Amino acid sequence: MNLALLFQDDFVATDTAVLTGRRLAHLHSVLKVAEGDLVPVGLVDGDIGTGRVVRLNDTEAVLQVELTTPPPAPLPLTLILAMPRPKMFRRVLQTCATLGVKDIWLINAYKVEKSFWQTPWLSDDNLRENMVLGLEQARDTHLPRLHVRKLFKPFVEDELPALLRNTRALVAHPGTSTPCPAHINEPATLCVGPEGGFIPYEVDKLTEAGCEAVHLGNRILRVETAVPVLVSRLFDACV
Amino acid sequence: MNLALLFQDDFVATDTAVLTGRRLAHLHSVLKVAEGDLVPVGLVDGDIGTGRVVRLNDTEAVLQVELTTPPPAPLPLTLILAMPRPKMFRRVLQTCATLGVKDIWLINAYKVEKSFWQTPWLSDDNLRENMVLGLEQARDTHLPRLHVRKLFKPFVEDELPALLRNTRALVAHPGTSTPCPAHINEPATLCVGPEGGFIPYEVDKLTEAGCEAVHLGNRILRVETAVPVLVSRLFDACV
Repeated sequence: MNLALLFQDDFVATDTAVLTGRRLAHLHSVLKVAEGDLVPVGLVDGDIGTGRVVRLNDTEAVLQVELTTPPPAPLPLTLILAMPRPKMFRRVLQTCATLGVKDIWLINAYKVEKSFWQTPWLSDDNLRENMVLGLEQARDTHLPRLHVRKLFKPFVEDELPALLRNTRALVAHPGTSTPCPAHINEPATLCVGPEGGFIPYEVDKLTEAGCEAVHLGNRILRVETAVPVLVSRLFDACV
Repeated sequence: MNLALLFQDDFVATDTAVLTGRRLAHLHSVLKVAEGDLVPVGLVDGDIGTGRVVRLNDTEAVLQVELTTPPPAPLPLTLILAMPRPKMFRRVLQTCATLGVKDIWLINAYKVEKSFWQTPWLSDDNLRENMVLGLEQARDTHLPRLHVRKLFKPFVEDELPALLRNTRALVAHPGTSTPCPAHINEPATLCVGPEGGFIPYEVDKLTEAGCEAVHLGNRILRVETAVPVLVSRLFDACV
């Protein structure tokens, strides 16, 4: 937690917020703050700044908040991700939030196991919690938008073309002949398959919709590694 | 497991290897192979190729092995990593092996908790197992060399200068003013701190030894995200 993300519910006055629970525990056990200290804070979907600890005990921390600075710029990226294995999904979601991905579409694919969709990590509370953890790591405040589409074909045929418009549209596909472009200067839409990859039918549908199949070299990366590698490669000026 | 990594002990004849345990289970449950099928294999520190399944049952798979192709090129990178939290260490080690990092120095730092060094993930068997998992993901065969140095100052003063010679020497340090270089064409040595970063004394010692402090932008990344982002940024042509 490089920043405590504040929500409207945390405020008891215009410039006064009260922290409890996880964020309070972090102030005590990791940051080891005392009354009078300044801690980095941000308002969800707003600016970042500092909170002066004006009262601190075992049940709450009262912060006098001053928000002064805009958060880091978002990545101009729409990420279309075949639903990963639950434990990996949680980490990938945090990583996406940390890296500044603001638009995430979770889709089905042939090699996505049906059970993955049953994970409690997809509940609204858990999605929000993990996005918040990722934002706090990066000192960002803008929550990603996450969309779930459990039917591959209707998504690719009916919704994807509009998402691709005016973006560099790519599908990461090990074994294809075109290397992934580097340091592009335009918005991108990037499709990343499941463990084992998209099947040829899926790659065909994605390329028909307008995506270019690209590879990252000889090495096949896990999804949780491929996402930061791709983001860094596409947008090295932004990260 | 995009490749089954074979060791000399697996061979019962020059071109015949017997798989048991984890690799056998993977052939059954994930790859669902049958006798006659070809599976991708590699010889540790050697070439990659295929194994034809000549016998398969619940206790072993016998493969007739043909090694034809060199593994992917190693990254020209020496990674100096402050010992991460154990669960993260395990993932970072796998990721390093997958990305082609062949030289890893685990060092102490002020913000490394003493308990991290007690983790069973540092046992020889566990180190090897996690490096193998990372290599199998990438279809690589060359095991990384891992060195443990639990004393920061003697390492930085007595050993680091020789490691840095003829390399681009960098320490990732959020908040510094120089951005990390991109797509370099030379070997690099990269120091990555613990959660919370290197303290100023440590950054001073690393820069005295010859490292340049560089940042990755406004966002502070977890170690497991920073490593693939840095590797992709430095060596986009190699990954």
